[in-house]
Amino acid sequence: MPDFKVHILGCGSATPTAKHKPSCQVIETRGKLFMIDCGEGAQLEFRRQGLKFSRLNHIFISHMHGDHVLGLPGLLSTMALHQKEGEVTVHIHPEGAVLLQQIMAVLCRDTGFELKYDIIEPGGSYVLYEDKSLTVSTFPLYHRIACSGFMFKEKEPRRPLRADMLEFHKVPVAARRSIAEGADFTDAEGRLIPNAWLTRDPEPAVSYAYCSDTMRKAAVARSVAGVRCLYHEATYDDAQAFKAAARGHSTAREAAAVAREAGAQHLVIGHYSKSITDESLLTKQAAEEFGGKITAAKEGLIFEP
Amino acid sequence: MPDFKVHILGCGSATPTAKHKPSCQVIETRGKLFMIDCGEGAQLEFRRQGLKFSRLNHIFISHMHGDHVLGLPGLLSTMALHQKEGEVTVHIHPEGAVLLQQIMAVLCRDTGFELKYDIIEPGGSYVLYEDKSLTVSTFPLYHRIACSGFMFKEKEPRRPLRADMLEFHKVPVAARRSIAEGADFTDAEGRLIPNAWLTRDPEPAVSYAYCSDTMRKAAVARSVAGVRCLYHEATYDDAQAFKAAARGHSTAREAAAVAREAGAQHLVIGHYSKSITDESLLTKQAAEEFGGKITAAKEGLIFEP
Repeated sequence: MPDFKVHILGCGSATPTAKHKPSCQVIETRGKLFMIDCGEGAQLEFRRQGLKFSRLNHIFISHMHGDHVLGLPGLLSTMALHQKEGEVTVHIHPEGAVLLQQIMAVLCRDTGFELKYDIIEPGGSYVLYEDKSLTVSTFPLYHRIACSGFMFKEKEPRRPLRADMLEFHKVPVAARRSIAEGADFTDAEGRLIPNAWLTRDPEPAVSYAYCSDTMRKAAVARSVAGVRCLYHEATYDDAQAFKAAARGHSTAREAAAVAREAGAQHLVIGHYSKSITDESLLTKQAAEEFGGKITAAKEGLIFEP
Repeated sequence: MPDFKVHILGCGSATPTAKHKPSCQVIETRGKLFMIDCGEGAQLEFRRQGLKFSRLNHIFISHMHGDHVLGLPGLLSTMALHQKEGEVTVHIHPEGAVLLQQIMAVLCRDTGFELKYDIIEPGGSYVLYEDKSLTVSTFPLYHRIACSGFMFKEKEPRRPLRADMLEFHKVPVAARRSIAEGADFTDAEGRLIPNAWLTRDPEPAVSYAYCSDTMRKAAVARSVAGVRCLYHEATYDDAQAFKAAARGHSTAREAAAVAREAGAQHLVIGHYSKSITDESLLTKQAAEEFGGKITAAKEGLIFEP
């Protein structure tokens, strides 16, 4: 199985309610945690779900509306109290970085970790983070204020070696590294053994895109084209469609259209208006537009994109 | 019964836990709500307890530590979304007012209510709020940073008229107002009827003091001398007493000593360290110092001081 999970910490909108917390989710891959958005109360949900501050070093903030960011000062303060060390990088729009610095200067002057700010250029499309197995890039969303989406992509994995074929073709240990890197092999009799015989197909690379908050735009589908799993806000149902674009939001049906246009396999919807009492109606309306798998996010949900 | 209640919305310390929320309480009297401190998540607890934004117009912030203030931007934003009107006054230290203005300028530019700031002078002792039946005053606490306590005092109520005695002494309607204001009455035969015969003793005026966060200080007891009900932080138990003063906090025993010195009738303790697993130990240690009623605060508790 791919080592890539998404934890939903909050998938409500605007104001926290008894049913849904404001936006926050955590990507867990290869022992690292990456947080996307941080609504009020996220720190409590983070610990309730057994996640570890020691593994969280990157936080991505889509935009400066309270339901996506108000939990951040408390999370960082609690991480400081919990003796968090190393570095924490907050990827955030310019005015967010200024504000967070102002807040931290008053409320949390001393952190054992180094708090770094990576300024997201509003409207920009580029890589924000990269390690040997993952890239995180940003792309524009279309909301009432500057808002950025995030794409998490595993790098194309290497083809794993086949122990049985290495033995069969009597491949010496010294040759294995180059085969793992993609080379063919010439055996003792001078025969060329193609790399594909010595390795097997890897698990397909995971890709996951986060689009919240945004109105429905063809440009969003282009930005996430080919993504395997798409999280797209679905604030409203069909009956409330008249509110969606005016408020910079989408209906579940519009989210599904973006998933279809992007060629996604799996759509996860969230950011429900507090007027939505039954998310299965949203799933139903989305299913009329999109034939892939559809999941309605809820707090505590963990899924593999 | 006096029309005066205290709602505990949070009585933990430092970081929110599954057991306790950070500091927040609401005084309810004569149809008005007054909030003291506003830790992260207070807006949710406020609505969970069925309190109404429309009745909340004054918020008092003791000091600028996150567990006392991080819920404020979210509360104000949600009040704005709920079409709150009129005025909301935040009574807060100078650097808190500056920071809150910075936060609101980014996260919540439009509020249907007028957001006013009343700057609390650190170290000052004076009246912050007054209406016809209540005064709220501030006094200094002794914490790691500037911190202010709050005293809520009902004004001395008028003596209620006794309908039976008004009838017996044949008091005309026109004379009742002056009797209600304290005058004696001279009847048709020229006899002086003392005011005390025509009225009865009122309920005693309620007074309630909030002392969190603070180390134990004789000056605090003097500031709240004669208070009927004292809320005093009790972060630690006896075994942790060595931490208390150094961190600007108190033990339950120290809170009880302040209650005794102040001549209070009722002590409510709270602001428990997350290391406290059983608050009854705090109550027991407090009872060794203070003979009055002792209550351990918990979320959802409503009491009449």
